[in-house]
Amino acid sequence: MPDDFLKLVHLNEAVGVLKGLMTNTGLTTENIKVENACGRVAAEDIKAPTDMPGFERSAMDGFAVKASDTFGAGESLPAYLNIAGEILMGKPAGFEIRESEAARISTGGMMPPGADAVVMVENTEVDGGTVEVFKGVAPGENVILKDEDVSTGSIVISKGTLISPTTVGAMTGLGLMEIEVFGLPVVGIISTGDEVIPPDREPSPGQVRDINTCLLKAAVEKAGCISKSYGIVKDENELLFDTSNRGLDDCDCLMISGGSSMGTRDLTIEVLGRLGEPGLLAHGLYLKPGKPTLIAYCREKPVFGLPGNPGSALAVFNELVVPVLKRLRGEAAENIPRGARVVEAVLETSISSATGRMELVPVSLEKENGTIIATPIFGKSNLIGTLARARGNIRIPEGSEGIEAGATVTIELLD
Amino acid sequence: MPDDFLKLVHLNEAVGVLKGLMTNTGLTTENIKVENACGRVAAEDIKAPTDMPGFERSAMDGFAVKASDTFGAGESLPAYLNIAGEILMGKPAGFEIRESEAARISTGGMMPPGADAVVMVENTEVDGGTVEVFKGVAPGENVILKDEDVSTGSIVISKGTLISPTTVGAMTGLGLMEIEVFGLPVVGIISTGDEVIPPDREPSPGQVRDINTCLLKAAVEKAGCISKSYGIVKDENELLFDTSNRGLDDCDCLMISGGSSMGTRDLTIEVLGRLGEPGLLAHGLYLKPGKPTLIAYCREKPVFGLPGNPGSALAVFNELVVPVLKRLRGEAAENIPRGARVVEAVLETSISSATGRMELVPVSLEKENGTIIATPIFGKSNLIGTLARARGNIRIPEGSEGIEAGATVTIELLD
Repeated sequence: MPDDFLKLVHLNEAVGVLKGLMTNTGLTTENIKVENACGRVAAEDIKAPTDMPGFERSAMDGFAVKASDTFGAGESLPAYLNIAGEILMGKPAGFEIRESEAARISTGGMMPPGADAVVMVENTEVDGGTVEVFKGVAPGENVILKDEDVSTGSIVISKGTLISPTTVGAMTGLGLMEIEVFGLPVVGIISTGDEVIPPDREPSPGQVRDINTCLLKAAVEKAGCISKSYGIVKDENELLFDTSNRGLDDCDCLMISGGSSMGTRDLTIEVLGRLGEPGLLAHGLYLKPGKPTLIAYCREKPVFGLPGNPGSALAVFNELVVPVLKRLRGEAAENIPRGARVVEAVLETSISSATGRMELVPVSLEKENGTIIATPIFGKSNLIGTLARARGNIRIPEGSEGIEAGATVTIELLD
Repeated sequence: MPDDFLKLVHLNEAVGVLKGLMTNTGLTTENIKVENACGRVAAEDIKAPTDMPGFERSAMDGFAVKASDTFGAGESLPAYLNIAGEILMGKPAGFEIRESEAARISTGGMMPPGADAVVMVENTEVDGGTVEVFKGVAPGENVILKDEDVSTGSIVISKGTLISPTTVGAMTGLGLMEIEVFGLPVVGIISTGDEVIPPDREPSPGQVRDINTCLLKAAVEKAGCISKSYGIVKDENELLFDTSNRGLDDCDCLMISGGSSMGTRDLTIEVLGRLGEPGLLAHGLYLKPGKPTLIAYCREKPVFGLPGNPGSALAVFNELVVPVLKRLRGEAAENIPRGARVVEAVLETSISSATGRMELVPVSLEKENGTIIATPIFGKSNLIGTLARARGNIRIPEGSEGIEAGATVTIELLD
């Protein structure tokens, strides 16, 4: 690896380059029950098989009428109509509406033949077998046409759409009980570092427990992907290469979370350089935390070297890896960003940012008299304490010099 | 049911009253693996079993030194120290640092005895067995004390905390591989309406497919609860009472999504009135959509009558039911609101709001030249079309008269 290969890239640039390289998005497809499809991605355009609602329906509780019978009706001069009967829900009317007739109808009831409008119940008064209409209606008023909701063949859900509860509802409304969705990408996780031991072991002096494997597994699953862990690899070139190679074979995306030392990082750079073409793309991110991030694309798969610090690894995962995983999940490129879950808070202490990079400042959150107070979590390396206390991030844009205490800030939540 | 019982309540008021009644929150607990605990709620305070990191560590790549040996060192007058050896990652040093000595150390390496500070590698130059130090360090500089991260017995995660990837990371860092979490509440779903048929059946004239059962199942699971469906109940008093009664026995919370007609709503009111004490609490919400919502508390369980329109049912679910479910999940009362996932967009057409109620206006979203355009979805009852197109809501506060086209608006995403 030549020494001058030290390209720092901006986040958008990195995501853009990777998305440009990724041709194999929406890797596989499978047919699943619609009721279980929330959070998955549609692998086909879904078209309406028939007109909906399929029959003329009332949009109101009231009386189905011939609109012409109500023309000119008002408070002072009501129209008088004979009640011909009642439309039962879920049944066609057994009768026709003739001139000067009306039928009781509920919201969603099927319009009887002969009727072309519905008078709202609020604008009527019943007297025996007669209904007084105090407000005229126009033809079609308060009526839903048979294809007014959805017409046959129209695309109701397009390929690449993230399925939400509303999408599930729309599908079942069309009688579509199964849906072709994209398969879930598998994301490999490798931890490195001679000092790192499995978390269920008792560390000897000098050793620390592996945090990143479980943290990233949780983050990968939260991002709607499948995680596959390759455990902890010691800082040995061939060991790391072999494990990475195997991970790249098995998975659709690979993440190597480096030890925190320069030595481990150099090792990861070397391994990423020979995993496959085109190999290492960038050597750092204009992002704090996350500067030492490595970005590679090997054998048509994205590979990331994440910082060893767990908080930094998660920040880079959320900012850089998640957009790439969305593409692997088959989400359409033109999709609206999903945004972060946010709350407003008052900043407890000033933040100065002199890095020139975009910065994510972790904060703890507390409620005081109904106000949410955000306190930045500083400290050189409060790994576990920081992780436990951090509830969200404040995003400080590139070029900003910081935020004064007392300002109202938007917190992007981490849970 | 007396006619004057028609109390409309505000959302906050309704949630507040229900939370006040709910004493049985965090219903059960179970012990699960930490790596699978993301999205669950801690059922106990988690305390650090030992000091962390447990040994003095370097926070930088560089040289471990006696700080006193570097006092006064600068660019023009460096301190010269003998390199006594290198600290290997994950191992204690096999040697002690004496006066005028230094040891190579990596970030995370264990401090050797005798050393009390670390000089960053950037401030040194190595010449054979000697290191030149160009910047003095104070005692403790670039060193993490043995309990600086977390000290024994301190609470790192408190009861009622929603477990996120960072919490998972913190737990594994402490060697805690299992966690006691609250059990997931079971939410019963009943659909009503004579015109409603199971979605896998072909509707006859006058009939419509059940949308709410699957839509609410997806929404309940997205909210981190277990759903249990009771199918479609015809508009018959005893049938609805028996099913509701059974649902209330089985579940921790019950939702009856009403047909759209007044008749079905009246029926639900009657049934809610005799399911158990204290019974029906409110008869409507100052919310659009969602006015006809019914709120009850029967036999120590919250029961909701949701509107029949699927979009309205989902809005009421998200606004009213989800906060109640969070309490049932055991989330601490003082927790920070989780907020909505939001994006900024430009409003395509003006919205006028004259209801006096808080209003949620569904919008479709499209990207045009990098700008997200939000178009309100109007229409008297485009049930399926609306569901399929709606990507988010604009929240119009009570008292607002609307929003002009061209304004930048915050969209709360639905997926």
